[in-house]
Amino acid sequence: MLHILYIIAITVEAMTAAISAGRREMDWVGVCIIAWVTALGGGTIRNIILGHYPMSWVEHPEYLYITAGGAIFAGIIAGYMKKLRFIFLLLDAIGLVVFTIIGCRLAQEMQLPVTIVLLSGMITGCAGGVLRDVLCNDIPLLFRKELYASASILTGAVYLLLEHVEVSSHVATITACLAGLALRLLAIRYEWQMPRFVYHEEWE
Amino acid sequence: MLHILYIIAITVEAMTAAISAGRREMDWVGVCIIAWVTALGGGTIRNIILGHYPMSWVEHPEYLYITAGGAIFAGIIAGYMKKLRFIFLLLDAIGLVVFTIIGCRLAQEMQLPVTIVLLSGMITGCAGGVLRDVLCNDIPLLFRKELYASASILTGAVYLLLEHVEVSSHVATITACLAGLALRLLAIRYEWQMPRFVYHEEWE
Amino acid sequence: MLHILYIIAITVEAMTAAISAGRREMDWVGVCIIAWVTALGGGTIRNIILGHYPMSWVEHPEYLYITAGGAIFAGIIAGYMKKLRFIFLLLDAIGLVVFTIIGCRLAQEMQLPVTIVLLSGMITGCAGGVLRDVLCNDIPLLFRKELYASASILTGAVYLLLEHVEVSSHVATITACLAGLALRLLAIRYEWQMPRFVYHEEWE
Repeated sequence: MLHILYIIAITVEAMTAAISAGRREMDWVGVCIIAWVTALGGGTIRNIILGHYPMSWVEHPEYLYITAGGAIFAGIIAGYMKKLRFIFLLLDAIGLVVFTIIGCRLAQEMQLPVTIVLLSGMITGCAGGVLRDVLCNDIPLLFRKELYASASILTGAVYLLLEHVEVSSHVATITACLAGLALRLLAIRYEWQMPRFVYHEEWE
Repeated sequence: MLHILYIIAITVEAMTAAISAGRREMDWVGVCIIAWVTALGGGTIRNIILGHYPMSWVEHPEYLYITAGGAIFAGIIAGYMKKLRFIFLLLDAIGLVVFTIIGCRLAQEMQLPVTIVLLSGMITGCAGGVLRDVLCNDIPLLFRKELYASASILTGAVYLLLEHVEVSSHVATITACLAGLALRLLAIRYEWQMPRFVYHEEWE
Repeated sequence: MLHILYIIAITVEAMTAAISAGRREMDWVGVCIIAWVTALGGGTIRNIILGHYPMSWVEHPEYLYITAGGAIFAGIIAGYMKKLRFIFLLLDAIGLVVFTIIGCRLAQEMQLPVTIVLLSGMITGCAGGVLRDVLCNDIPLLFRKELYASASILTGAVYLLLEHVEVSSHVATITACLAGLALRLLAIRYEWQMPRFVYHEEWE
């Protein structure tokens, strides 16, 4: 179940990444690379930091074909994607919570401290988008967008809390995903934002 | 002693990183992430390159809380930080030399060649700031700033030289730190700069 | 033979990187760091992703001196490099195919799937330039330039194909290099480009 959602999630991430690449007038090789980095980069950075080898996509190269296919398909139907905007935002939010749970679980299996389990979830969910923005020469959206990282942290926290009170792992996963999903979708709907820290004085 | 200085150094790095994030109007999650990356990113990149696991902050998650706390505190007192500018530059310079010594020692323990020991110190001292600038979408200051990397190299070189002539490790550390600190502070005071390589001809 | 070409390749990469750094008015420390990252970063990223330690330049620190020397030399003769433009493009193209073959072989030795072998070659050949562009705050040229990544993929594909039909490794290497080189040079000569995906509608 989580595996199927994972495949859907990386495909959706790849498709939205293709749109970003199109805005920067990249060629089709660039589009595929941005798609790979966005869809698979979060898990890759997490694995590198935690020293967990091999990467999932090194063992399953079919992930590379799936995401490249998704990116090219997104390029072809780009004109229609705007109309499907809500579906993409929904799938992207599902991707975020699924990535988060996968990241938390991996850190749990490595028996890391609770803080690192939460952070592992957040890195898995968010770092791909940060890499995409760095390669497209933008300030990462993550640092300015509607509760993206916060939804990831909420997902991880609910999951850990429910596991701690010895709810079954299935129930914990589903409840956590729904909580994170709800926060993210409400944030999009009502344009909730974290307060910003704005500072413009010169002192250097 | 080095450990206490290390804690002070990561806190100061986190605080100055928060100011950078504030200039880019990031939200508070972004501020914390930039603080983490700046304060802990140098050591993390060094560990990844040298294959040295686990990361210090994975074993000591309290570093994450200390740096996040420092970043939020810096946001709150941002209006006053300007008046404390000199203290911050001093603490930042202390952080640079402390990070450098820690990086050199780790590479020494791994019995790597002298050149790599120096580079390990430089990566530990400087890479966090480079990551901060990349995520804030700036050209890294390191490549253009007053003898930042040079102060790191000097610290490492003095340290290795003194160890080589069999001075006690304590004396070597303190002398090297003072030498690096002096260079950095003199560079700030008198606006010393490395010569630049400027090239504006078009040939592509 | 491949080793000599490798040394030439990293030197040439370092020299062209120095010109990029000069355009950004970096100081000489910055020039050396950009040169190292460009010349050695591709192989380093590949090794980090595949978990292959230690890095070649950690074992052979002389690579750091060779590339730094190349970068400084390029800075000194910058005024003349324009006239040697064709030689540099040729050497850079040779570097690309040599890096690619080295990356493919390393992944083969690790007995990774064919797709990953190709990707390993591409990362080795191209990632250094991407890092250079990120640090110089550009959108990576790779994603928009004349068949750079494509020449790398062709090199790897020809190499794997010839090995598969049990041609000797020498013949496979040389044929693959010539094929990739031919594609890259023809692409430069006739300004061949991959089709671009351009998308400018706003929908966020």
